[in-house]
Amino acid sequence: MGNQALGKSSIGYEKPVFIMGSGNIVGQMENEGPLAGCFDKVSDDKNDMFGEDSWEKAESALQKEAIALTLEKTGLKAKDVRFLFAGDLLGQTIASSFGVLDYNIPFVGLYGACSTCGESLCMGSMAVAAGYADTVMSLTSSHFASAQKEFRYPLEYGGQRPLYASWTVTGSAGFLLQSEEASSNMQKAAKNTFRCKIGITGVTIGKIEDFGIKDSFNMGCAMAPAAAWTISTNLKDFGRTAKDYDAIFTGDLGNVGSEALYTLLEEENIDIRGKHYDCGMIIYDLEKQDVHAGGSGCGCSAVVLSAHILKKMAQGEWRRILFVPTGALLNKTSFNEGQNVPGIAHGVVIETV
Amino acid sequence: MGNQALGKSSIGYEKPVFIMGSGNIVGQMENEGPLAGCFDKVSDDKNDMFGEDSWEKAESALQKEAIALTLEKTGLKAKDVRFLFAGDLLGQTIASSFGVLDYNIPFVGLYGACSTCGESLCMGSMAVAAGYADTVMSLTSSHFASAQKEFRYPLEYGGQRPLYASWTVTGSAGFLLQSEEASSNMQKAAKNTFRCKIGITGVTIGKIEDFGIKDSFNMGCAMAPAAAWTISTNLKDFGRTAKDYDAIFTGDLGNVGSEALYTLLEEENIDIRGKHYDCGMIIYDLEKQDVHAGGSGCGCSAVVLSAHILKKMAQGEWRRILFVPTGALLNKTSFNEGQNVPGIAHGVVIETV
Repeated sequence: MGNQALGKSSIGYEKPVFIMGSGNIVGQMENEGPLAGCFDKVSDDKNDMFGEDSWEKAESALQKEAIALTLEKTGLKAKDVRFLFAGDLLGQTIASSFGVLDYNIPFVGLYGACSTCGESLCMGSMAVAAGYADTVMSLTSSHFASAQKEFRYPLEYGGQRPLYASWTVTGSAGFLLQSEEASSNMQKAAKNTFRCKIGITGVTIGKIEDFGIKDSFNMGCAMAPAAAWTISTNLKDFGRTAKDYDAIFTGDLGNVGSEALYTLLEEENIDIRGKHYDCGMIIYDLEKQDVHAGGSGCGCSAVVLSAHILKKMAQGEWRRILFVPTGALLNKTSFNEGQNVPGIAHGVVIETV
Repeated sequence: MGNQALGKSSIGYEKPVFIMGSGNIVGQMENEGPLAGCFDKVSDDKNDMFGEDSWEKAESALQKEAIALTLEKTGLKAKDVRFLFAGDLLGQTIASSFGVLDYNIPFVGLYGACSTCGESLCMGSMAVAAGYADTVMSLTSSHFASAQKEFRYPLEYGGQRPLYASWTVTGSAGFLLQSEEASSNMQKAAKNTFRCKIGITGVTIGKIEDFGIKDSFNMGCAMAPAAAWTISTNLKDFGRTAKDYDAIFTGDLGNVGSEALYTLLEEENIDIRGKHYDCGMIIYDLEKQDVHAGGSGCGCSAVVLSAHILKKMAQGEWRRILFVPTGALLNKTSFNEGQNVPGIAHGVVIETV
């Protein structure tokens, strides 16, 4: 039967692509929220410089460390990884270019703004499911300070942030994906971090949605239409209803964007309340931490998947989830030239099998 | 037998992925070089604004038009294209985000600097060969003025450019890729632009090479090691010698980078002189046009492939070629912070079949 092209934009895999392990690293603030103690490595420096002398280099150091942790946990070496799919938020994705350089792994650079974690899991699992590679890694990062410098104001300027703005997560996570054959053959060498089989069974490639939002701080509302499209398309393409998923995770809509998502999906008679979680609202305590609408950034959904969701799946909390990282497509030039802020979201179906 | 993962970093397809058509558009200067008259559409405005009021929007207009031309030439509609793989040089790849928006095609955003044309053909053909899609489009662009603003000095500043610097091509090209089934089934609807079957039969995913170049004007030398790695790896992975290719095209090494490439390959006893062409040296007349080392940018290799190489293949000039777009991984921040300029190059095997 083979892999199947489903409906508008989805792919169902004949065999699951196994997530054999995942390593993550975060800044200090991320370890002061609800997931404190869940991360593999936490910055020991209050400025989250990770031993570097610039924020961009600090973000590259995050990626470098996330690869090292993922390899360490799975007992693999860089040469065992055939392709690396990675991206980040910085212009020309320099956090990735300089972060992955030393590992010498054939590299596919991606840009999907904060949806990049989803995009990298889609491209990585597609490559493995097609037999193009036995073992690949998907990797993303973001850093609060490098993102502020890239998209908004210098930190020293002390600009006010509206309450619907989100806070860019400082963090990076890598995901080691393997074919069934490789995951069995290499069982002795490659330790399965999760002590149970968790696999990607299908994906839904997102499309760009532009609802005319012009306020680059209001990213939740800018991305909600794209998340709604991807969730709705995923359900149609796979012939499922929301009930077929134990949980649906968006990337970084925050509290404002999540409400917009519910409204948009209700217009299509889809109700995800009760089973929807937003990674941006999982990683921080919105009451106690000064993050306004929640966390955001490529690193947000990545570290929440790595440090929280996959672990809970391994413990049996959820059996089948839909993971939908969300991205806002803008840069400072497009914003200054008065362009809208369109969004995109990619969907990844993850199951314990 | 199926598709095959070959050697270190290559994939050989069981059946060719057919390039059914390609549309391209360029600025005025590109149409004053050796390929004058070969392009589908040329700017009618000496500033290459394409009817827009900013350079970034002009570059998006290029992508929009390249999609329209590709669809028109193949007799297809946007809804017939399952996935779009696209990228460009601008920060957060905004030329693509805003260029492709109106077509509503599920979208995979890529960043590989000037290697992105190769990356998009790799990802697009991989998706088709795996059966994930019948029809996809690969698309890239660059614009001289938006690139100067993004990477170097404002044009008004009138900065001097060293003789080894290249000139960013203003242009965009789309490539419509189809499976054998789709290309046969849709033969009536989808016109084959080339009146002969030209297909992608394999790819080699590049890896980042850093030889310590710090001068961001000297991109030819920064990218030559990556091109050498990809060509050498392609030959090893496919069990071929340079003789098995009728021609090998690099993206934008220019005259300086091409010499560096020959030297590096000669260390591995690979001689490509005589059959090597650089797209950056094909598109401009280096004697008569003031472009110094040659053309560069994501649009350079894309429009040369679209307007020149594929047409010559259709005419029987070459039967099997290796197409290797080359990218320099930097941005203005990494340059200002004293980082090196690493390179990457992706290889695409194209044959008439």
